[in-house]
Amino acid sequence: MAGAATSAIKSVLTRHLHASPGSKKIVGVFYKANEYAALNPNFVGCVEGALGIRDWLESQGHQYIVTDDKEGPNSAIAHRAYDLEGKTVGTVGAGRIGKLLLQRLKPFNCNLLYHDRLKMDPELENQIGAKFEEDLDAMLPKCDIIVINTPLTEKTRGLFDKDRIAKCKKGVLIVNNARGAIMDTQAVADACSSGHVAGYSGDVWFPQPAPKDHPWRYMPNHAMTPHISGTTIDAQLRYAAGTKDMLERYFKGEEFPPQNYIVKEGKLASQYQ
Amino acid sequence: MAGAATSAIKSVLTRHLHASPGSKKIVGVFYKANEYAALNPNFVGCVEGALGIRDWLESQGHQYIVTDDKEGPNSAIAHRAYDLEGKTVGTVGAGRIGKLLLQRLKPFNCNLLYHDRLKMDPELENQIGAKFEEDLDAMLPKCDIIVINTPLTEKTRGLFDKDRIAKCKKGVLIVNNARGAIMDTQAVADACSSGHVAGYSGDVWFPQPAPKDHPWRYMPNHAMTPHISGTTIDAQLRYAAGTKDMLERYFKGEEFPPQNYIVKEGKLASQYQ
Repeated sequence: MAGAATSAIKSVLTRHLHASPGSKKIVGVFYKANEYAALNPNFVGCVEGALGIRDWLESQGHQYIVTDDKEGPNSAIAHRAYDLEGKTVGTVGAGRIGKLLLQRLKPFNCNLLYHDRLKMDPELENQIGAKFEEDLDAMLPKCDIIVINTPLTEKTRGLFDKDRIAKCKKGVLIVNNARGAIMDTQAVADACSSGHVAGYSGDVWFPQPAPKDHPWRYMPNHAMTPHISGTTIDAQLRYAAGTKDMLERYFKGEEFPPQNYIVKEGKLASQYQ
Repeated sequence: MAGAATSAIKSVLTRHLHASPGSKKIVGVFYKANEYAALNPNFVGCVEGALGIRDWLESQGHQYIVTDDKEGPNSAIAHRAYDLEGKTVGTVGAGRIGKLLLQRLKPFNCNLLYHDRLKMDPELENQIGAKFEEDLDAMLPKCDIIVINTPLTEKTRGLFDKDRIAKCKKGVLIVNNARGAIMDTQAVADACSSGHVAGYSGDVWFPQPAPKDHPWRYMPNHAMTPHISGTTIDAQLRYAAGTKDMLERYFKGEEFPPQNYIVKEGKLASQYQ
């Protein structure tokens, strides 16, 4: 779309590198965005926006001729697509999964934040390149994207209710890697409908399997999957090896590795409290 | 699916940590995979595969009771989903975009390979963590995933023809970030139909816009988009600023930055040769 326009301009320019003095005619060729053009002031890569350089060109005495005489689909989709680069991404929870997320986002040059009960040790924090946010409610309005990586506990059940979602930036994207019940189901559906949340995605529902009338099946701008993300072939081989290992230890009367306990001697493991 | 089974086993085990001697009954609860169970020998996270531990349990004198008495959808999707971690990913072309890809894949713990005309300088290669493959045809059979990041030139036009695709590993995934004409259209469609290529994705077509009868619209296991990936709002603002900068330099009779030339004084820039 605008890319093709830029190429066209480039090709004209490179034929005659040095401009003769005086007024020039500049031709810009774009796709039409139609009714989508007005939805975002930065949607400049369309015939309606015309790269936003008309005033500048005309103020210099040049003529700017803009045309949509170009084959191809229109630019509807482009008015709400963004780069990840440069955006502020916050994780709620920075345990094993939250840390992996931060490490994998680092080369995308985002501004990374994390909220957790514990601050990482400074060396790890520096290597991961994320900033600690002690107060969740103070982190939320800073984030373009919020990723939930905290276990479901009595403290996190319903954590994202109507009030907390209202604290997020308008247009936030929320990715829930954790458990459906961390969200207030109807509050998420309402925020997606109003546009306060620009996108909600996750693999987890509450209840699960999701009933046919679950609001997240019908809300706009969701990218939900039916709890399938943990079932790769590689993960199945890990489950199988892990189950065999636990049974083997059990038959021999050996202890399990501490991270494998959910409940031990009647006590819930610390990460689930 | 298998995750729930593992949890069930965990919960049983943690109630009585130490096994009494003698034969035990082990209960595994899984979803059914039905006709998909036979499609992959490593698809063990279903009632048919039952984690692949039956022989081992029975050889120790235990009983293994496997049931699908569990609510929820079946596991059809799981027989061909894989983790990126641990896979061999090769890029054809390691210029600006290929290098960014490699840098961003690094924390996913893949085995990274690159084919290019030039080997990177050793320090950069080490920082990126990718291994140089001088011979494209020698790299292809090693890759689980091939990503094409090379410009379209007279040398790369039709580079992935029937013979070259045949050199790829059976079940390879191909991602084309570059130009549609680097591929032989029909050879890609045939390889997706036969299953030799397990997935083909890209944003680029040849010709473009793709005619209604373009074979890639109808081949199985494609994830094609209609050339939209460069049109984020952030990219549009970059085009606009770049176009303004080039026009400004042109009006002033200044040179452009070298990377902005496609043709200069009748000569194609080196990256397009």
